[in-house]
Amino acid sequence: MTLYVNLAELIGARIEQGLYRPGDRLPSVRALSVEHGVSLSTVQQAYRVLEDHGLAAPRPKSGYFVPDHRPLPALPDVSRPAQRPVDIGQWEQVFELIRSVPRKDVVQLGRGMPDVDSPTLKPLLRSLAQLSRRQDMPGLYYDTIAGTEALREQVARLMLDSGCSLSAADLVITTGCQEALSTSVRAVCQPGDIVAVESPSFHGAMQTLKGLGMKALEIPTDPLTGISLEALELALEQWPIKLIQLTPSCNNPLGYIMPEARKRALLTLAQRYDVAILEDDVYGDLAYTYPRPRTIKSFDDDGRVLLCSSFSKTLAPGLRIGWVAPGRYLERVLHMKYISTGCTATQPQLAIADFIEAGHYQPHLRRVRSQYQRARDQMIDWVARYFPEGTRASRPQGGFVLWVELPESFDTLRLNRALLEQGVQIAVGCIFSASGKYRNCLRMNFAARATADIEAAVRKVGETAIRLLAEDEHGR
Amino acid sequence: MTLYVNLAELIGARIEQGLYRPGDRLPSVRALSVEHGVSLSTVQQAYRVLEDHGLAAPRPKSGYFVPDHRPLPALPDVSRPAQRPVDIGQWEQVFELIRSVPRKDVVQLGRGMPDVDSPTLKPLLRSLAQLSRRQDMPGLYYDTIAGTEALREQVARLMLDSGCSLSAADLVITTGCQEALSTSVRAVCQPGDIVAVESPSFHGAMQTLKGLGMKALEIPTDPLTGISLEALELALEQWPIKLIQLTPSCNNPLGYIMPEARKRALLTLAQRYDVAILEDDVYGDLAYTYPRPRTIKSFDDDGRVLLCSSFSKTLAPGLRIGWVAPGRYLERVLHMKYISTGCTATQPQLAIADFIEAGHYQPHLRRVRSQYQRARDQMIDWVARYFPEGTRASRPQGGFVLWVELPESFDTLRLNRALLEQGVQIAVGCIFSASGKYRNCLRMNFAARATADIEAAVRKVGETAIRLLAEDEHGR
Repeated sequence: MTLYVNLAELIGARIEQGLYRPGDRLPSVRALSVEHGVSLSTVQQAYRVLEDHGLAAPRPKSGYFVPDHRPLPALPDVSRPAQRPVDIGQWEQVFELIRSVPRKDVVQLGRGMPDVDSPTLKPLLRSLAQLSRRQDMPGLYYDTIAGTEALREQVARLMLDSGCSLSAADLVITTGCQEALSTSVRAVCQPGDIVAVESPSFHGAMQTLKGLGMKALEIPTDPLTGISLEALELALEQWPIKLIQLTPSCNNPLGYIMPEARKRALLTLAQRYDVAILEDDVYGDLAYTYPRPRTIKSFDDDGRVLLCSSFSKTLAPGLRIGWVAPGRYLERVLHMKYISTGCTATQPQLAIADFIEAGHYQPHLRRVRSQYQRARDQMIDWVARYFPEGTRASRPQGGFVLWVELPESFDTLRLNRALLEQGVQIAVGCIFSASGKYRNCLRMNFAARATADIEAAVRKVGETAIRLLAEDEHGR
Repeated sequence: MTLYVNLAELIGARIEQGLYRPGDRLPSVRALSVEHGVSLSTVQQAYRVLEDHGLAAPRPKSGYFVPDHRPLPALPDVSRPAQRPVDIGQWEQVFELIRSVPRKDVVQLGRGMPDVDSPTLKPLLRSLAQLSRRQDMPGLYYDTIAGTEALREQVARLMLDSGCSLSAADLVITTGCQEALSTSVRAVCQPGDIVAVESPSFHGAMQTLKGLGMKALEIPTDPLTGISLEALELALEQWPIKLIQLTPSCNNPLGYIMPEARKRALLTLAQRYDVAILEDDVYGDLAYTYPRPRTIKSFDDDGRVLLCSSFSKTLAPGLRIGWVAPGRYLERVLHMKYISTGCTATQPQLAIADFIEAGHYQPHLRRVRSQYQRARDQMIDWVARYFPEGTRASRPQGGFVLWVELPESFDTLRLNRALLEQGVQIAVGCIFSASGKYRNCLRMNFAARATADIEAAVRKVGETAIRLLAEDEHGR
């Protein structure tokens, strides 16, 4: 099932190793098919993956070539986290990141903030204003606990795009995706339970596990295809895992889209071991390819997948509107939602429902998706240009965050401190690990349009890293 | 310290028993002072309490008389809940109440909804609309985790009214009071811990304890002066209580204001046994007397009180803006707030800050306070007129809910089902008890202006109760 991925990795590795250089012709589809004993279409799929990652470029009637531009940074290796459940740390580092007040004089590359300056968002603001002028003042009333029906209907419609056939009654609106995550975890788990997570993994989700007293078991994760199913199966065999929590589409922080076949296989595994799946799809609609990837939820036939999402990355986070499709855990999630915040704010729900119903959502997505894709290429190029030799970087297939890996001994906490004096902030890698791994990594946001300011900020990150590495070298 | 309360209760009981009848002159201040060996001012305080509850009326130069109008329903007795910690039930009944979608054809006397039709709320809606038209679109951005500083400053100012000297840095804005409650409980308690609560007690707070796996110990509570300090002290002696959770100002559902001296004494008790206090002040600003009562928090000198509140009862619940002043638990509450919903919606925070800063809050409060006070008198009179003989009712000193006690064998779940066919809904008593007591009680909302529709609905409640009682009688 992952033949083409394996093949793409193999050829990719040869390119990274310099066996093929920029401008070189790559082996023909037929030659690779023979060499590896796979079908022509498998090789073509492999080349498409390489193309997506900028490692191969087709020339009409001549086959594939290594692109001529600046070589891309290598990909991070498959992660190798601790092989046992751990209590989660890093609250102090997360707190430092999230408590930082947005300041005009600091370029915040560390936050998960989308671009909200797009003119395609204007109708949403108009709706909000109109709702405030309505005589019946709907925004002032308590909503029902599951959320406004008009919005649930629209969300159910949107979810058709990811292959889910749900109705409004299957959904619960939440105060952002964070509430979807925390109510879902509480609906499934008890304190002390073990939750399997990707590694690296979104800090908000991991702090939820920490706050609720669960243990995290980090599973090795491939920067192109996601969580290792082999490692996950071993873990399921070995530990009483209650929940698998992951972000398989446009992963945060790695940016990969888990191939559909692997999503299916993961679900089968969860069924075999009777484990629930929490699927965080908050970046899923921002995949650079259209139609967007299917969710694991879309294959779920026994209600074990809790799909969590929100409009915070696609529209605007300040509205705090998310949702959960909790499957068989619906009533438990409603209870947890009730004790968490009662109901969700009414007015932004109505405004978003208007926005989608009037047909503004897809045009907005199209615009920001292609903006983010261009910004990704630019950001990777800046990393190739300004960062220390040997720096590795992810190849996001959607969303707007880049994962960067510096030499192993490097400390990004120290880098972040040095950068703050220069008006730049990054997300340090250690907050993406339950056990504080990835100290040599960082995450940068590329949602903002690529301006000279952003380039200058990224350059500062790279140059400061080079300086600190040189100091270390000197100190030895 | 409670001499005058005891005296008021004694005289009140004599009136209720018919020893003094409407129009009768009550004993003089001097006579009572001699009879009970207390000071003149103690007697005067006692009469003031009786006056507040409509049991005594002063006539110039002639002393106090029993008012001539329809006799008020008797007060409920001091509650006598189970004397041990219990697992909390009643989720199904709460769920039935909160899942009910507001319908035009049902008069919802059961919900805690304020009157949002007051013209004094218009400036708030204007602010919301203006924010949506601002070029910099502040409503779209993530807020900081503690909440918008402008709003925290205004809340700190408002809290001066209840005797609290806090700064913006001492406050965390939440998604309604419910999030303030749940983050506070989680900041202090672990699953399995015992929490002491008033009895009856707000169902949302109790479901929070349930959802988080705590046990509730219900403490006997006086319908005029609140939680019994004597019973509480015995409980603290006997059980490892972690937290005392209560609503001492304009209690929900009983409506009392705990006298200031008792608030102080409660704090002393908490200090002696080293227990935290969760003070729910969500109705506090709606006390019918001005200045409003002081909070327990205002006496707190070692940071053990977590004060929770919101604008849901004073302004509008649909905005979902509350706050917590967590004292020494600030960082824990911030962590729990982060995992609960990330940050709070930005736009309603800014709108409310504008509203308060522009001086609109106090005029609005003055208006709704006096409206609610008049509506209380009207509601109690309707209960006296339409409800079965022997019905008891609370004497709210603030807020907009009335607690009604029917004969002991009565079942308000059955009443509610019978009422729903007639387009009326009440809050059944059992959801206000961890162990499902108060099946013979109900709570009604009197926030809506007293119209013929509301009177007809209350009348239906009373007449249906009379009919069901007669059926029971007949069935025996």
